[in-house]
Amino acid sequence: MAKTIKVGIVGGTGYTGVELLRLLALHPHVEIVAITSRSEAGMPVAQMFPNLRGHLDIAFSQPDAKLLAECDLVFFATPNGTAMKLVPELLETGTRVVDLAADFRLQDEAEWQHWYGEKHACPDLLKQAVYGLPEVNRAQLTTANLVANPGCYPTAVQLGFLPLIEAGLVDCQHLIADTKSGVSGAGRGANVGTLLSETSESMKAYGVAGHRHWPEIRQGLSLMSKDKIGLTFVPHLTPMIRGIHATLYARLKSNPDDLQKMYETRYENEPFVDVMPAGSHPETRSVKGANHCRLAVHVPPSGDTVVVLSVIDNLVKGAAGQAVQNMNIMFGFDEDAGLKIIGLVP
Amino acid sequence: MAKTIKVGIVGGTGYTGVELLRLLALHPHVEIVAITSRSEAGMPVAQMFPNLRGHLDIAFSQPDAKLLAECDLVFFATPNGTAMKLVPELLETGTRVVDLAADFRLQDEAEWQHWYGEKHACPDLLKQAVYGLPEVNRAQLTTANLVANPGCYPTAVQLGFLPLIEAGLVDCQHLIADTKSGVSGAGRGANVGTLLSETSESMKAYGVAGHRHWPEIRQGLSLMSKDKIGLTFVPHLTPMIRGIHATLYARLKSNPDDLQKMYETRYENEPFVDVMPAGSHPETRSVKGANHCRLAVHVPPSGDTVVVLSVIDNLVKGAAGQAVQNMNIMFGFDEDAGLKIIGLVP
Amino acid sequence: MAKTIKVGIVGGTGYTGVELLRLLALHPHVEIVAITSRSEAGMPVAQMFPNLRGHLDIAFSQPDAKLLAECDLVFFATPNGTAMKLVPELLETGTRVVDLAADFRLQDEAEWQHWYGEKHACPDLLKQAVYGLPEVNRAQLTTANLVANPGCYPTAVQLGFLPLIEAGLVDCQHLIADTKSGVSGAGRGANVGTLLSETSESMKAYGVAGHRHWPEIRQGLSLMSKDKIGLTFVPHLTPMIRGIHATLYARLKSNPDDLQKMYETRYENEPFVDVMPAGSHPETRSVKGANHCRLAVHVPPSGDTVVVLSVIDNLVKGAAGQAVQNMNIMFGFDEDAGLKIIGLVP
Amino acid sequence: MAKTIKVGIVGGTGYTGVELLRLLALHPHVEIVAITSRSEAGMPVAQMFPNLRGHLDIAFSQPDAKLLAECDLVFFATPNGTAMKLVPELLETGTRVVDLAADFRLQDEAEWQHWYGEKHACPDLLKQAVYGLPEVNRAQLTTANLVANPGCYPTAVQLGFLPLIEAGLVDCQHLIADTKSGVSGAGRGANVGTLLSETSESMKAYGVAGHRHWPEIRQGLSLMSKDKIGLTFVPHLTPMIRGIHATLYARLKSNPDDLQKMYETRYENEPFVDVMPAGSHPETRSVKGANHCRLAVHVPPSGDTVVVLSVIDNLVKGAAGQAVQNMNIMFGFDEDAGLKIIGLVP
Repeated sequence: MAKTIKVGIVGGTGYTGVELLRLLALHPHVEIVAITSRSEAGMPVAQMFPNLRGHLDIAFSQPDAKLLAECDLVFFATPNGTAMKLVPELLETGTRVVDLAADFRLQDEAEWQHWYGEKHACPDLLKQAVYGLPEVNRAQLTTANLVANPGCYPTAVQLGFLPLIEAGLVDCQHLIADTKSGVSGAGRGANVGTLLSETSESMKAYGVAGHRHWPEIRQGLSLMSKDKIGLTFVPHLTPMIRGIHATLYARLKSNPDDLQKMYETRYENEPFVDVMPAGSHPETRSVKGANHCRLAVHVPPSGDTVVVLSVIDNLVKGAAGQAVQNMNIMFGFDEDAGLKIIGLVP
Repeated sequence: MAKTIKVGIVGGTGYTGVELLRLLALHPHVEIVAITSRSEAGMPVAQMFPNLRGHLDIAFSQPDAKLLAECDLVFFATPNGTAMKLVPELLETGTRVVDLAADFRLQDEAEWQHWYGEKHACPDLLKQAVYGLPEVNRAQLTTANLVANPGCYPTAVQLGFLPLIEAGLVDCQHLIADTKSGVSGAGRGANVGTLLSETSESMKAYGVAGHRHWPEIRQGLSLMSKDKIGLTFVPHLTPMIRGIHATLYARLKSNPDDLQKMYETRYENEPFVDVMPAGSHPETRSVKGANHCRLAVHVPPSGDTVVVLSVIDNLVKGAAGQAVQNMNIMFGFDEDAGLKIIGLVP
Repeated sequence: MAKTIKVGIVGGTGYTGVELLRLLALHPHVEIVAITSRSEAGMPVAQMFPNLRGHLDIAFSQPDAKLLAECDLVFFATPNGTAMKLVPELLETGTRVVDLAADFRLQDEAEWQHWYGEKHACPDLLKQAVYGLPEVNRAQLTTANLVANPGCYPTAVQLGFLPLIEAGLVDCQHLIADTKSGVSGAGRGANVGTLLSETSESMKAYGVAGHRHWPEIRQGLSLMSKDKIGLTFVPHLTPMIRGIHATLYARLKSNPDDLQKMYETRYENEPFVDVMPAGSHPETRSVKGANHCRLAVHVPPSGDTVVVLSVIDNLVKGAAGQAVQNMNIMFGFDEDAGLKIIGLVP
Repeated sequence: MAKTIKVGIVGGTGYTGVELLRLLALHPHVEIVAITSRSEAGMPVAQMFPNLRGHLDIAFSQPDAKLLAECDLVFFATPNGTAMKLVPELLETGTRVVDLAADFRLQDEAEWQHWYGEKHACPDLLKQAVYGLPEVNRAQLTTANLVANPGCYPTAVQLGFLPLIEAGLVDCQHLIADTKSGVSGAGRGANVGTLLSETSESMKAYGVAGHRHWPEIRQGLSLMSKDKIGLTFVPHLTPMIRGIHATLYARLKSNPDDLQKMYETRYENEPFVDVMPAGSHPETRSVKGANHCRLAVHVPPSGDTVVVLSVIDNLVKGAAGQAVQNMNIMFGFDEDAGLKIIGLVP
């Protein structure tokens, strides 16, 4: 019988926060002992998020270092740049940490500073942190004290390219990731650009000149490859709440063997990666609310370009669900504990 | 330790069918032994609904009376007029039945025939069937062999009016139910009227001259009341997939006591009815994918009209979830077994 | 040949502002000479709203009393409470004004102060202003110097109730207006509550305890009636950008004559009110981008309650389009000049 | 003063049909004399499409060869394979034709047969037909008797790639077009796959193994280029009604000159192609209901890959609007007659 651990959440008013609560409130081995919010301290969580009424009886509280130190695990669902100021002290108390923001995702301090626009508060931890993509780093995660939970686009893109790059089959200098995200990926902040009236019934690219997930993906793909990575990454805003659809393009170096088989083999023991039958077109809704990544691999008849379709729920496998999966690995729970969820269709 | 029962589903290709599968696939006390579809026999269920991949390994099959007779319970998720032809024979074998369609919802044979346009195949069963609204008929459901699962609008409207009418506080001759439904309520049939391009970014009323849920609601309210019921019922099609929002209006006969308290008291032991705090405006998304009905009761300052707001997910509390709740009651399981689900927000 | 008038717009960065620009940029008798925005002064309008590229070559400017005074007409598309501070001075220069906000909609100073929470800056003008509902006040509009453009809900509700109330057919003490609006009605301000992720795939009522459009509607209906008005008004937020659907309920005092005919006769000379054939259910999309109000009148068989369905585009007939219609009347242009627009379907 | 021409429409019940009606009903030089539909003959057009009420007083009629022969121009808005059976006879009477379907888009008879699955009925006309992309074939269109109106994806993709390919700047063997379309592109047929409940809140690719627009695009690009064309084309279904967003990728052969300038120069005289300022991300909504194509060209800092963003309204520049533009050119009207429309924002 698995133990129950004490869990704290720092910064619970955003979409990754409420999604963590949805998953953890029903998790068989978790007791939520604190959820902090400076701005909402005192307000019952279920008042802000009525979907939690009857499931979670806790209020937002002021951050309290002592209370957090009593937790076995603390999730940071804070804006970028917050966790790095609090994590070192917390780790010293023996509390383990999963950061859902970007503070520990890049190993290179200079690159982090370049993309996030400030000096890193604890650069020593950058190399110590384990990048929380279980399909790549499961072994290290079992003993990790500090886990950098991957970004949403990086999860979908890396899982899609992984088998091709590990096998050395494609030209790594000219990878293309055309990615489409639901609007919840932009967060719960008050923002004209993500109003329904601005984003519904419309589609657009953004950040073509540079996006913070680009170095994260490049770093991950570089670690899989022996070659240098060249990646063109174009994200798009799509009129839906949840979901990422990554359409990946790479040029095959030689006539491919059975790519379908190769994908199936690579992921056959992965509980949350589903390689669909040949010819499939995965829909984002098939993973709505669920922790799966669904993949399909195609080689259109005309050419030497392989096309991979990769879908996730940006708030689950792309954020809170993957964080829970990482927690399960860190504490030796069943990897799908609290994550046995079927995508909401229709 | 609760036993496991054998369950069959007749007609599993529609939205109530796939929703039943989503709930039953993870139910702790259910083994799905058959799911029938004449048109899709042989196709794995997870091929039609990829969200079920990895969760349910069964194919659609031809209806097989013998196999269904071996079930403890059969759900009918068929079009209106189908169940009544198969149910009598099935009941004789000792199998219990929950019909998610309308075949057994009206007790009066003539009225059924008027609204459904054909002669009823087994009128004797109309009065034997238990109307599956647990908040009204829980006791009878424990021993029911045939349960008529309520319609979606009738669930939201009856739960909203119930405390007022039981208490005799309002003029029952002039009730108004202005109801708004997501498009999934219209089913999964190929139909120009429910295409995204026809229904998105638009709103309309329909069926003002007459809707089949009107006699069902009137029957239910009549049973709660000592007075004759007069009801104006206007349904609307709303550009969303799931959700019903019922806005109910009634004239108070006298100065109300504490209506908030009365609602809370009436539903205090109900696991799936949530009376929200005074002044609340429940959102349909707070119950998206969940079996709850959330209610708020208002008396606007100007007058003698009480306004009740009632939200459900039309496919869950309005269909498959309520069917599972009824099953739980019929077989003595925890009433929320398989239904511990938090609404998907955002 | 109609003259061309000089028009200014104060406050052009919101949704009513950009909608005015869409209509005025193609209007045959209008020259836009100024569009002001303190925050965006200097920015070309088409940079903020690229849909205007190639159609309108003007930049936002600082408010300039002298330039505005040279206009024949100034539209105020400002937040409530702004126009009343600037209008008196402008009127003195001979410039005529249409205020799209609420500053001049209520005739009673105390009631205005109650609902808008501040002292009115020019109460003398409250009674001088003409309420810009052409179907009621066309004659006064021809000579009006100051027009209070109606709110969106009030337009849909008043046009729907008008024939019934003028004819004295219904119980005016117990009117009900159940109204549903697209999200653009909440404006273009940064606001968590109107994010796509908060409002898509959901429906809710709001403001049941009190909404500023309630006194405006009551005032309008009172002027049509000899009786006191009792109105229950419940607005709802609907997951679409544009559109209002008002569903109106009233109890008939006696057996109705031919209501269909009465509605058709009342509006037969109105260019922008379309009484649909008996039995119709107007869709909001049928007026998307267009200045029409479409109505249908029903008496459900069971009772003595009449149901009126009324749809408009909240940004057109509910705001900018009606403002242009008022301008056309004020300056003797064809009433549909610049408003010959067909609803965008699909 | 331009003359007025007589226009007929064959097949007016689909989305391209109603969109043609929206544009032609307000066109200054067009009299609509017939709109045919075998299934709906006799029904007033405005009964099926109430947005047209008050703007168009005509009923669907049975196809009548004599009446069509009296037209100056007939638009075919029929399913693929219909026009080719009627056009030869019509052309002989001197009536000119614009086919909005695919019957005359491919010049090669064998390729047409391969992709459309039947023998072409009048292969001689395939080479005679002028491909109706005004930005490429304006001169030929002035005298064309038979115009093949381009497909929606092909319009967005060709206009995006055109300047690069004409200038010989990119590797034409490895072009990639990742395209996203609103659901109206799939037509108004009753179809489970395009129900709101199937397509809202989801995103998917389709037709990766082959799509009929692929040979059309390849043919067009080949005519612009001296090189052989290799194109990977992946269309996606997006949860919105209207709009195409094409994201185009090509590898630059050498260090680019000023691509921005090159695009601006190429399109400087085009009334319906708008090259946005450097760094822009065009939104599909900026052309909603309008005939413009908006383009932006980027070279992300990391590499040698150029990214072009191209947006159109699939029903306007991608279908009915371009058909009207072609008509204007064929008959010597102002090219923007009837097309002075501003995109509907929000």
